[in-house]
Amino acid sequence: MARHRLFLPDADPEPGTHLTIAGQEAHHAARVKRMAPGDALELLNGRGLRALGTIQGFDREPGQGRGAKPEWVLRVLVTSAEREAPLQPRLRVLAGVPKGPHLEEMIDQLSQVGAAAWSPLVTTRTVVSPRSGKMLKAERIASESAKQCGRAWTMEIGEPVPLDDALADGRQGARPATRVIVADASGGVYEPDGSPDLTLLIGPEGGFAEGELEAARRADAAVCRFGVHVMRVETAAVVAAGIILDAERRRPRP
Amino acid sequence: MARHRLFLPDADPEPGTHLTIAGQEAHHAARVKRMAPGDALELLNGRGLRALGTIQGFDREPGQGRGAKPEWVLRVLVTSAEREAPLQPRLRVLAGVPKGPHLEEMIDQLSQVGAAAWSPLVTTRTVVSPRSGKMLKAERIASESAKQCGRAWTMEIGEPVPLDDALADGRQGARPATRVIVADASGGVYEPDGSPDLTLLIGPEGGFAEGELEAARRADAAVCRFGVHVMRVETAAVVAAGIILDAERRRPRP
Repeated sequence: MARHRLFLPDADPEPGTHLTIAGQEAHHAARVKRMAPGDALELLNGRGLRALGTIQGFDREPGQGRGAKPEWVLRVLVTSAEREAPLQPRLRVLAGVPKGPHLEEMIDQLSQVGAAAWSPLVTTRTVVSPRSGKMLKAERIASESAKQCGRAWTMEIGEPVPLDDALADGRQGARPATRVIVADASGGVYEPDGSPDLTLLIGPEGGFAEGELEAARRADAAVCRFGVHVMRVETAAVVAAGIILDAERRRPRP
Repeated sequence: MARHRLFLPDADPEPGTHLTIAGQEAHHAARVKRMAPGDALELLNGRGLRALGTIQGFDREPGQGRGAKPEWVLRVLVTSAEREAPLQPRLRVLAGVPKGPHLEEMIDQLSQVGAAAWSPLVTTRTVVSPRSGKMLKAERIASESAKQCGRAWTMEIGEPVPLDDALADGRQGARPATRVIVADASGGVYEPDGSPDLTLLIGPEGGFAEGELEAARRADAAVCRFGVHVMRVETAAVVAAGIILDAERRRPRP
């Protein structure tokens, strides 16, 4: 079974460091996982750290404020600490915000499949515009998912990007240089080319408008098909991301 | 936008047939979609039919039983009817039953990505055993999804399969002959080989037991890795299915 992981966004310890951890992570380790001194843990900070630690002990400290319950505090000795580079290639996914609970599902799945970042894509047919509460929730899910699936780098959640801006990023000579891939039934199979930076555009429900596809082709985007049936936004996003990353892994990196 | 589709499991009409459709599909077309005479429809039966029809009109018939409301009845003229072959290759996915709402999500996504069938996989670490209510729900979701994503063939929902039986199906000389693919972090990239019949095995939470992986290798199963992070069962199933079908599409069929 997988080793228990703690997500500590503010930590960046060296081996030999003694950490004192309060809050949810300490409570969870003590009461839910019922861990004990001597148990091993993995520590992630979402910014490249992958450390191992050993539980030294648990303390109970008085809670903050009148009538607050005592809080669990966890003492951990860091035994090793590595800094991992972000995954190559870097794949940024721009996709519309699916309705209802499907946004959480999409963020979680994109994180598991190894996307580097997600931003809402703004198109002429985009219906759902994310409120700030939804974006904060997306960030919480990305953190939780990084811990669950053992990512050293948390998937970034970005601001909405209009289609024209996304296409401009892919034009020859554009900085930052990225290869833009547009998922559409009119395309062929994805051909990996070893680019270190990829941007995948997933159309809204109803697909891209014809003028949008023409603009994508004029901007030298790769229009590709990732399945034979109609896929909902969240399914298309995770399946296309999985296919692209797998195809690039088949090809030796430069 | 996509044409409105009706799912008619008992219909198999020739062009020129006049259909009379009652029940949910008629109500939905009349009241939710507010369709009108002259509107075009696509008709699927889940067993290969893809027909086009034109709405001739709506009737209101007395409801069944005392006090029942009148029912909508839809009259459709079938203008064309094709029988599609099932997708090649045929990909059967065997995966544990995820907890809570994730089963519905997995069935829907496997259907969108083009899997031919799903059955629960029984392993030593399988925790959740599906009750018959869950299996019936899985069938309803597969039908609904076929309609949504325009599949001519509904994804089949099968009985639980023990791992040993699944591996035996892949042994040389076994009938029916299928190529067995086992998703595990210890494997390499999936190499397409043009097999017309594929069986994908997704391990339970916590992964396959080591003895199970040895048995898979002894049975000549292809052990393959479909991502770099830990994926939940439902994500691994849809991503691996997408990668396999895409890799096979890159390879010309025999």
